[in-house]
Amino acid sequence: MVKLVLVRHGESIANQQNVYTGWNDVPLTPKGQEQARRAGQLIQQLGDFNPTAIHTSVLSRAIMTANIVAETCDWLYLPLYKTWRLNERHYGALRGLNKDVSRAVFGKEQVLEWRRGFDSVPPAQGSPVIDRRYAKFDQRLMPRAESLHQTQLRLLPYYEDQVASRLVQGQDQLVVAHGSSLRALIKYLEAINDHDIIKLEVPNAEPIVYTFDQHLNIIHKEILRG
Amino acid sequence: MVKLVLVRHGESIANQQNVYTGWNDVPLTPKGQEQARRAGQLIQQLGDFNPTAIHTSVLSRAIMTANIVAETCDWLYLPLYKTWRLNERHYGALRGLNKDVSRAVFGKEQVLEWRRGFDSVPPAQGSPVIDRRYAKFDQRLMPRAESLHQTQLRLLPYYEDQVASRLVQGQDQLVVAHGSSLRALIKYLEAINDHDIIKLEVPNAEPIVYTFDQHLNIIHKEILRG
Repeated sequence: MVKLVLVRHGESIANQQNVYTGWNDVPLTPKGQEQARRAGQLIQQLGDFNPTAIHTSVLSRAIMTANIVAETCDWLYLPLYKTWRLNERHYGALRGLNKDVSRAVFGKEQVLEWRRGFDSVPPAQGSPVIDRRYAKFDQRLMPRAESLHQTQLRLLPYYEDQVASRLVQGQDQLVVAHGSSLRALIKYLEAINDHDIIKLEVPNAEPIVYTFDQHLNIIHKEILRG
Repeated sequence: MVKLVLVRHGESIANQQNVYTGWNDVPLTPKGQEQARRAGQLIQQLGDFNPTAIHTSVLSRAIMTANIVAETCDWLYLPLYKTWRLNERHYGALRGLNKDVSRAVFGKEQVLEWRRGFDSVPPAQGSPVIDRRYAKFDQRLMPRAESLHQTQLRLLPYYEDQVASRLVQGQDQLVVAHGSSLRALIKYLEAINDHDIIKLEVPNAEPIVYTFDQHLNIIHKEILRG
């Protein structure tokens, strides 16, 4: 048996302001830092979870959460891998828009469709964002907007190569990521269909604990709440 | 031209208590965290220092310092490599002893010799420490006490392969480590002789900035003080 724990970052400035964030980089609020600490305590209390690596995105709110969890659990020495493939879904032209404002502008139904339809792609942002984080990649591969499906397609290669490969070897793993990138991953892990995924919410900093058998079949799932 | 910045961690609990620490794992004090933040601000003010990676030890006081510097400089997304080869010198049986007590027990001259002689090895600790950090290594290679010279010998392979190799490619690098592991590195970088290295002190959280030419000859050295 081996364990995978997924954690969505604590409250960010953008969560607080109810703004679409995606690939925008925003820090945790003080409340978000406290939530991350509490998530760390809950994970530590599992007792039998001993990860050999932590995986996160290249966005500060997830990295800060991972660092706080690592500090709380005395796991600072563990490798912390940061990859754009675990980034939040790219919200395209919705980036930085208040969610109420976007409903007023585009209509409630359209926004709900962009948010929750598995294959719906929001309007692309006009030009690629110049960002040091992605400067080393082929810019044509960098998204300007993503559906949840597209998010899943770019996330899974990392999950398979870097996370599942360690789980298969009996090594517990910790993934700290984002609301929609975790929804995409959970859809894959639990084989949730395109319709039912609409209803799934992943709250900030509530660790989700999967216990797998040696073939990575789920034998138990538990959500830790403070 | 390319830059290497070295930072010793901020004040730790052990610095505060004047205790030999070495491979013992102790956190930063609140003052140490503040020093790390200030070091980050000083590094950011350089303006032309843009590292592609951060390197640190597997000890919490250095990792916490690296995380705080990264947060302050908006470099959280950078790879942070953690290696035992950048650990503090292993102080053997002196680990955990108060420095005044150790002088009373072993004599002032002997302790000064252990602390400052390049080839002096303090008494080894009786048994290897069981520590998750080192469980994956051949235990026969793990030190039970080190001279500064031995510290340098295990540190340089990492420096050459992971730090200097990137400097040669024109990529600035940041190293966050410890008083004696940085002394060992500085001795190598500046070709300081075995006698003169005795006098070198590396204070907590005062960034040392080296500017190199393309062959890694030092063309400028600067110490940033708050």
